[in-house]
Amino acid sequence: MSSVTVGLDRTFAALADPHRRDILERLSQGPVAASQLAEPLGMTVTGVLKHVHALEDARLVTTRKVGRTRWCQLAPDPLDTAATWISTRRRLWDRRLDRFQAHVDARPDVNS
Amino acid sequence: MSSVTVGLDRTFAALADPHRRDILERLSQGPVAASQLAEPLGMTVTGVLKHVHALEDARLVTTRKVGRTRWCQLAPDPLDTAATWISTRRRLWDRRLDRFQAHVDARPDVNS
Repeated sequence: MSSVTVGLDRTFAALADPHRRDILERLSQGPVAASQLAEPLGMTVTGVLKHVHALEDARLVTTRKVGRTRWCQLAPDPLDTAATWISTRRRLWDRRLDRFQAHVDARPDVNS
Repeated sequence: MSSVTVGLDRTFAALADPHRRDILERLSQGPVAASQLAEPLGMTVTGVLKHVHALEDARLVTTRKVGRTRWCQLAPDPLDTAATWISTRRRLWDRRLDRFQAHVDARPDVNS
């Protein structure tokens, strides 16, 4: 199995959890200390750390410990890969619909 | 929990499996009989049907039985919702980087 396939499995699985999406949403606005993520998201620090570790495993977040603070930062590349996977399939689908429409338009009994 | 949240959970969970992505990839080119999906994807018909049912539960595929054939078709709306979720977070992240760059550019000691 290719590394892209494994990466997509990991990315989509990580995105399937609403708490992990909440964390990514907050991190899309800039780096945050893990301890500061908990309260606004209505989670315990332990809960946040569990999800942050899962996001690190999925390469969607990097963390760095400075003193006693664990800073979390979004790593956007896997999001780009996931978005590209989806948009490529959507484009194929749209093209298919366009071809179908062209086929319908070309039928003389429809246009007359 | 909102229906969008539940929908995203379901969509991303469905996309986390490589076989289910293979099926969606094939269906993005047009409707296919479930029995015709198996061989090109190196799967058994039973395996395909299991994944097709999971994709139906995630609203990513609709199926219709005509005689003894179960036709499968892509339902693109959940893909659009998932792509929008990702691209919105990416835009926030890019804007944050732009602001950071503007801040660096505005520093006289950097520009002099």
